[in-house]
Amino acid sequence: MGYHDERITVLSTAQCWELLRAGRFGRLAYRLGTEVNLVPVNYGVDGDTLLFRTAEGDKLLGVVMHPDVVFEIDEHDGEQAHSVVVRGTARRLEEDEEHRADDIGLESWLGTVKYNVVEIRPASLSGRAFRFGD
Amino acid sequence: MGYHDERITVLSTAQCWELLRAGRFGRLAYRLGTEVNLVPVNYGVDGDTLLFRTAEGDKLLGVVMHPDVVFEIDEHDGEQAHSVVVRGTARRLEEDEEHRADDIGLESWLGTVKYNVVEIRPASLSGRAFRFGD
Repeated sequence: MGYHDERITVLSTAQCWELLRAGRFGRLAYRLGTEVNLVPVNYGVDGDTLLFRTAEGDKLLGVVMHPDVVFEIDEHDGEQAHSVVVRGTARRLEEDEEHRADDIGLESWLGTVKYNVVEIRPASLSGRAFRFGD
Repeated sequence: MGYHDERITVLSTAQCWELLRAGRFGRLAYRLGTEVNLVPVNYGVDGDTLLFRTAEGDKLLGVVMHPDVVFEIDEHDGEQAHSVVVRGTARRLEEDEEHRADDIGLESWLGTVKYNVVEIRPASLSGRAFRFGD
């Protein structure tokens, strides 16, 4: 990841994708009306898109009404942290595309509920690594 | 934390505060104009408020313009996860209040930059614990 003397290192797009592919747990921020919502989601990478499952509700309504979303992953320990912030466009997959979530083995938190699959197509990726302390 | 047979457990307000007090790394979602921003922040709990430091920039401008923010912490491993989502009002502390950040030993990621301190006063806390898999 190339931690240099600077406290903050800007990650390359390739590094961002590497971290996104290695993760499976992130947070989605989206608008619902004038409110901002922020929720944790399990996700997977499918090609150059991110997929997550969601039940009917605010999250799905939000991304349908305001498809511009922000998604974030991070890892941190006592000494360093990195985060990747994805700005992109969300859309609910049609029924005949939903197999894409199964194809990448995307887990859901509730096996018993009917889920919709939402795709995020990234417009920009921004990754940073931080070192704590002196 | 009380994981029962259900996949999702709703956490009490007391449990949410316990997790907030134990953490120091979260994510802030806020509006800047019509856009949603999402950034990782180091934070600390001071009484019944959350504090974080930020340099001049989008984050500070955003919370000044749209003080209604959402803050989230989570922890996850292969088997379970929990998250706490805080909805609240952000304000920049006056200079004579900034010592509150020092008083709680709030770390910043960049020691060399002049920081402002932002306080989030929670209006609601929502915590959930999830179990993965079957």
